[in-house]
Amino acid sequence: MCDFLSAEARRLAPYTPGEQPRDQQYVKLNTNESPFPPSRRVLKALSRAELLKLNLYSDPACTQLNAAIAARYGLQSGNVISGNGSDEILAFAFRAFCGRGRPVAYADVTYSFYQSQAALFGLEARVIPLREDFTLSVDDYMDFPGTIVIANPNAPTGVAVPRTDIQRLLEADPKRVVIVDEAYVDFGGESCVPMIFCYENLLVTQTMSKSRQLAGGRVGFALGSESLIEALNRVKYSFNPYNVNRLSLIAGTAAMEDEGYFRNCCETIQENRAWLTEELEGLGFAVLPSSANFVFAKCGRLPGGELYRRLKESGILVRWFDKERIRDYVRITVGSMEQLAALTDELTRMLEDL
Amino acid sequence: MCDFLSAEARRLAPYTPGEQPRDQQYVKLNTNESPFPPSRRVLKALSRAELLKLNLYSDPACTQLNAAIAARYGLQSGNVISGNGSDEILAFAFRAFCGRGRPVAYADVTYSFYQSQAALFGLEARVIPLREDFTLSVDDYMDFPGTIVIANPNAPTGVAVPRTDIQRLLEADPKRVVIVDEAYVDFGGESCVPMIFCYENLLVTQTMSKSRQLAGGRVGFALGSESLIEALNRVKYSFNPYNVNRLSLIAGTAAMEDEGYFRNCCETIQENRAWLTEELEGLGFAVLPSSANFVFAKCGRLPGGELYRRLKESGILVRWFDKERIRDYVRITVGSMEQLAALTDELTRMLEDL
Repeated sequence: MCDFLSAEARRLAPYTPGEQPRDQQYVKLNTNESPFPPSRRVLKALSRAELLKLNLYSDPACTQLNAAIAARYGLQSGNVISGNGSDEILAFAFRAFCGRGRPVAYADVTYSFYQSQAALFGLEARVIPLREDFTLSVDDYMDFPGTIVIANPNAPTGVAVPRTDIQRLLEADPKRVVIVDEAYVDFGGESCVPMIFCYENLLVTQTMSKSRQLAGGRVGFALGSESLIEALNRVKYSFNPYNVNRLSLIAGTAAMEDEGYFRNCCETIQENRAWLTEELEGLGFAVLPSSANFVFAKCGRLPGGELYRRLKESGILVRWFDKERIRDYVRITVGSMEQLAALTDELTRMLEDL
Repeated sequence: MCDFLSAEARRLAPYTPGEQPRDQQYVKLNTNESPFPPSRRVLKALSRAELLKLNLYSDPACTQLNAAIAARYGLQSGNVISGNGSDEILAFAFRAFCGRGRPVAYADVTYSFYQSQAALFGLEARVIPLREDFTLSVDDYMDFPGTIVIANPNAPTGVAVPRTDIQRLLEADPKRVVIVDEAYVDFGGESCVPMIFCYENLLVTQTMSKSRQLAGGRVGFALGSESLIEALNRVKYSFNPYNVNRLSLIAGTAAMEDEGYFRNCCETIQENRAWLTEELEGLGFAVLPSSANFVFAKCGRLPGGELYRRLKESGILVRWFDKERIRDYVRITVGSMEQLAALTDELTRMLEDL
């Protein structure tokens, strides 16, 4: 390892993003992107006139974008902060609400980026196992004396926590921040956003990468009480004041304002998910109940790693995690019907040949 | 202050960006943006076809952008990391190369963001005064047992350090990282990039916000030995793997490939700077020798804050820092001739009326 590295940087646990291969056309079902293009409003808003202004800085306060988000969720702009993807927002939250004497807790099977960020800020982390069936028991977190992070629905399992369970956590200790990562909530989870008015200790993060077809635009945001948002802004202005670029501000605003397209896309994904789940079960897979735009499925006849490799050889990318408890599973993004049919055809062939 | 804040977040020193007013049309000479639009190649590259792919994640490795930057500077892609503006890259460097037992040193009058980032990572910082004339003496840094950050040319003064001085620092201790922030180097400074082959401990950061007319695109990068770049990637993948969005990757690549436009813009800024300096001196201002796209000037007849306020009332924004040693100065971006003529006309009127 490089001699110049600080002790803190040696302890890092860098995240491994899903493959973004550039050498071949794959049926890409590995990074939970939307199979649909961005809203036409986004295309229209990214006009020549706006491109010509790229020489000028973006608005560090993200005024219009935050206003559009606030309006959509019935909140005020002071309840919103936007970022360069929700990963950045989560990092701000880890710095703002965790530190010495304030550890962080998250599940053993969840978005592995939490571990990277805990290492980035040198946090003490308590990793709390999910139940055998991958559901989360909030009782396991009740007495935890620090900040709690829950992905809801969870990744990579797709399993959701009932909102009332999170409410119990919020009420158990009003001085403890609960961060609910709702990256996938628009596909069938119960959002905690309506509870923001009641609980000052609730922070909800969301992203435009999944349900609003802007993964390439990198727009994430958090919603919470004014005091939590103010705290996040302290970190933002210490890290990168102009954190959202001009075109992403514009694209994010337009995407947030196109409610019709958003709903259509989410509904189609849910229909496709039902179809995919049924097909996989027909092929003998065990599929966890998903509230997200992906399913987490176990073949039974092939180990997860083997399934992943065979599919990749056939030009289909899914995500496999070489990790305890979930090694037998693959995570499959709910793509377009065309993509999903290519997958199930290939799986049918593959399993017949076994 | 918010009860939920971690101790670490309480100690932050958030940066105050220059005003980005939205209420009125100003002659905006306060944030060192380019007065020229982005390259035509950028406009062409940001095609409809690319906008339609915004539903897909950007390339986390920034392959094409890094290749374009490497090609421009005669380096390999392994010598390059790109970021969401050079502010983000600087934050990565502060985390990678500073920490417990490895303090950071920078000048008393320099880019104030260094202080914000030192606070963000809880670093011990040694602030080393510039000489009376705002030049930097590298001898003051020779024995410093940590990482050194030098803005060259410096902001907000515009004063440059000779490359050979930085070479002396690099050679004095090959185990110590020297970060040279070359945000403004293309307007007349001596770049340290040609020394990267010789000094493994040299990291150079640059931005496309000034000389490549992409402030709104947020594209910065660092150049250095492979081991330094690898260290920065460790931090990046712990913080935000998809840190540069699709459109900025495309815009940055196209801007980097348009050498002709880049040179024309830089030359025009240097001509305009010579004109502005002469005009200001004619009006009795003391102007520091600038190698940047701004000048740092002292009126003598009006305190800096008063000058800033009067200009703002007249619709002209410059930047004033209410800070020891530089309170009498204002920093003026070298804009277009039209903008600069508006400024000098207004200053002439203002000083006649005194």
